[in-house]
Amino acid sequence: MQTLGIDLGGTYVRAAVVEADGTILGSSKQALTERTPEAVVAAIALAKRAAEAEAPGARVERCGVGAAGQLEGDSGVILVAPNLGWRNVPFGALLAEKLGQSVRVVNDLSAAAWGEHEAGAAQGAPDVLTVFVGTGVGSAIIANGALVQGARGVAGELGHVKVVPNGRLCGCGEKGCLEAYTGGHHLIELMKEALAAGKAPLLAKAVGEGTPNPAQLEAAAEAGDVDARAIYDQALRFLALCLGNQVTMLNPGRLILGGGVLAHAPHLRQRLEGALLAVASVASRTGLEVRTAALGDDSGLIGAALLA
Amino acid sequence: MQTLGIDLGGTYVRAAVVEADGTILGSSKQALTERTPEAVVAAIALAKRAAEAEAPGARVERCGVGAAGQLEGDSGVILVAPNLGWRNVPFGALLAEKLGQSVRVVNDLSAAAWGEHEAGAAQGAPDVLTVFVGTGVGSAIIANGALVQGARGVAGELGHVKVVPNGRLCGCGEKGCLEAYTGGHHLIELMKEALAAGKAPLLAKAVGEGTPNPAQLEAAAEAGDVDARAIYDQALRFLALCLGNQVTMLNPGRLILGGGVLAHAPHLRQRLEGALLAVASVASRTGLEVRTAALGDDSGLIGAALLA
Repeated sequence: MQTLGIDLGGTYVRAAVVEADGTILGSSKQALTERTPEAVVAAIALAKRAAEAEAPGARVERCGVGAAGQLEGDSGVILVAPNLGWRNVPFGALLAEKLGQSVRVVNDLSAAAWGEHEAGAAQGAPDVLTVFVGTGVGSAIIANGALVQGARGVAGELGHVKVVPNGRLCGCGEKGCLEAYTGGHHLIELMKEALAAGKAPLLAKAVGEGTPNPAQLEAAAEAGDVDARAIYDQALRFLALCLGNQVTMLNPGRLILGGGVLAHAPHLRQRLEGALLAVASVASRTGLEVRTAALGDDSGLIGAALLA
Repeated sequence: MQTLGIDLGGTYVRAAVVEADGTILGSSKQALTERTPEAVVAAIALAKRAAEAEAPGARVERCGVGAAGQLEGDSGVILVAPNLGWRNVPFGALLAEKLGQSVRVVNDLSAAAWGEHEAGAAQGAPDVLTVFVGTGVGSAIIANGALVQGARGVAGELGHVKVVPNGRLCGCGEKGCLEAYTGGHHLIELMKEALAAGKAPLLAKAVGEGTPNPAQLEAAAEAGDVDARAIYDQALRFLALCLGNQVTMLNPGRLILGGGVLAHAPHLRQRLEGALLAVASVASRTGLEVRTAALGDDSGLIGAALLA
């Protein structure tokens, strides 16, 4: 038997027919032109049909969704999905009715971490911390072989751990969050602020009239641009502190690092590994394996399907 | 059927015959005059007999031990027990042979947290963070109704999360740990350092020729002693930061606070509750119940017995 995995983002939805071992038999992607719950459910139904057409003979009886948003436990209710403009949408029930199948809705990072656990870089490890440093910063915890979702389903909010009391305003509305110094969106803002102030000359040269990106930040920092280096080192220091401290608390056997910022700034990824190990307690880091996420964008699709 | 719970400290061992609901039917305490594994095992056998004598009719077939030390998973091997001067002692096997019973050895804080979960302040909550601020600082995590012990069994080392890069030397040999600013042992050292420097006049008056304690620190800080206040506020700030950030990460439904420092500085306990909620993300703290540990010294005995 196969299951259907859905990756629900803010601009598109992906569907895949997935084998029990994580193999994708067929997949499809639909742009979201409208973002009402009804329109999204309809787009998923279309994506499902297209994915199933690529996997003749598959018998799909359950559906798992990884959604970028805050969920109410395992109820299928999406409390807040900023990218979709949703609040309190009983999405799981709406989708189950449309598809005529049982549906489980989980957080997108939980789905991605589960995908890595079942078919990627975290296979075989019962205790895993998975951290994604992309536009935002998030994580998912697996302990005793099971996802740790917390009392309200919001465990793993590593991006909103505080690193500077009353510091920089984060997208979440609170101040001093890790994400406000290390997430891709905020790194771009920090670079723009430096450029607007006439600072970071090497970065300015690389960026020209375009929008700065993390790869340019890393290159400028390494070329000796002091202002770029300050932004880069701050991000490295805060990420190392928070990740190292979580290793101390959770004592995972494996730490999986993923997300666009680390992919595009490979030396930051390498430095982070050394720096976080220097922060973590000796007892907790002994035997820890640090690995890069292996499944890319497919991790959420695969994980959602296997959690169904 | 009843089980035997053992609380193994550095100076004494306690034993109790415990019902499945956590009721203690009989208990006993033996001083540890010698600290070799053989002597400790013999002391436990004595304590067991004395506890069983108080509980006629009990049928004890399993034994759980909460030990102050670092364990190798569920193997029963104690890797390091500083108070006993042990390294790599196959304690579970030695005790099982002596008692002729199956023995499970867990960390003392895990045992205490499990006791609170089964019969104390955390009853009925599947996702719990329990924090003890005593001579040392430690914690235990329960997620999905099960203890989170980590890959090597050392999860929950909250006292060794770093709060000041290259900061104050901690008893663990590393620098800048939470415990080095907030544990009872270090609070006393910080007070002694202030007194030796001729600072903290109100604290000096209260302490006289004795050893300062956390209750005196709180009283002096509240009476307006600026130097006592600095130590007190620093402890409050670091505890709030680390506990609040762990609430953000773990999203527990209940946070249990225990340990001697918080018991003897009740206003610190109250202030900590408000301050940590201000640090935690809104999503993670919504619905969080903060409670004081209810079982006192018995939590470890009860938890060890029920984990057997």
